[in-house]
Amino acid sequence: MTETAAREPQQDRSRATRRRLLEAAVECLAEHGWTSTTVSVVAERAGVSRGAAQHHFPTREDLVAAAVDHVTDVRLGEIRREAAELPEGGARTEAIVDMLVRHYTGPLFRAALQLWTAASSDESLRAQVVPVEAKVGREAHRVAVELLGVDESVPGVRETVQATLDMARGLGLANVLTDDSKRRRPIVRQWATTLDAVLEGSKECR
Amino acid sequence: MTETAAREPQQDRSRATRRRLLEAAVECLAEHGWTSTTVSVVAERAGVSRGAAQHHFPTREDLVAAAVDHVTDVRLGEIRREAAELPEGGARTEAIVDMLVRHYTGPLFRAALQLWTAASSDESLRAQVVPVEAKVGREAHRVAVELLGVDESVPGVRETVQATLDMARGLGLANVLTDDSKRRRPIVRQWATTLDAVLEGSKECR
Repeated sequence: MTETAAREPQQDRSRATRRRLLEAAVECLAEHGWTSTTVSVVAERAGVSRGAAQHHFPTREDLVAAAVDHVTDVRLGEIRREAAELPEGGARTEAIVDMLVRHYTGPLFRAALQLWTAASSDESLRAQVVPVEAKVGREAHRVAVELLGVDESVPGVRETVQATLDMARGLGLANVLTDDSKRRRPIVRQWATTLDAVLEGSKECR
Repeated sequence: MTETAAREPQQDRSRATRRRLLEAAVECLAEHGWTSTTVSVVAERAGVSRGAAQHHFPTREDLVAAAVDHVTDVRLGEIRREAAELPEGGARTEAIVDMLVRHYTGPLFRAALQLWTAASSDESLRAQVVPVEAKVGREAHRVAVELLGVDESVPGVRETVQATLDMARGLGLANVLTDDSKRRRPIVRQWATTLDAVLEGSKECR
């Protein structure tokens, strides 16, 4: 076996370990909150030794910020894939809003919420989380514009897309303590109708 | 001094103590989070003995849920008073949306966020928080409908008002880690324009 061949599976294993740690961190954060999400607890959940976990992530701040970044990438990838299945025509806008809102009502949002809340009273965690958040915000905005097929140079379009994501975030928060899906459905439907009216004329050729 | 006269100042003192505890609890929650908000810490901050604090609130769950309920009442009262100052005519809707959004970007929202997040992984706290939240949601909705002067029996109106509050909640969350006011301003302005267009025809006589 050449040296290169031996190194590759090791790199694969290292990547797989890293991924398992990131996914376990998100689950742990969503279920038990920031206080209970330590490197040791996450390592155990991922079936990884504490030493190996600390090799990848020296502190839980590193681990948890990387986890939210990673899972956001995965989730945005899923959204892009789902996007290919979206209907054209009249039902499209509601399907898009519904998909974006689902992004904010799942376990990733719960994990991110634990992180934001902890970061709001913890300076070092905040320094890790703010850049990740800014990236997630930009990406979500880019995806929304792309899916809606609108031209942001038309006045009011950018703000309306942002308001849609802010509303989705607010719906996510309303879903944290109770199942809010019954209240949510007609809001999403009405928002889609409003979006169609506001964005009419700013649609780019598809 | 009659027995009644003696009892009244005592009741006043008791009410004042209770109020100081509730306000200290909200400050403590917003600044330091749920984990650090114990009855002892809050009592010290309020300048009240631990025993007196525990007489009013046996557990921190009791204290904190009562605190959010109390401060929400105060805040809704403030909104009603501010409402009297709102301009009539073209600028009114933006002023209303701006006022509602301010409700979600202040210290009370930060305190409530700490509480929701903690409650999402704590069953007994959740049982305290859910009814308070439901009340706050109903009240905020009622105030918004009243201020906007709209008729909820018109299709889409109720959902649009709810979406406005959900958007305000999402804007609150976006403001937790960084000062989001610059991004927020044009969103509020654009949403007010949209609201005027959507709600036109559902306005009740003023």
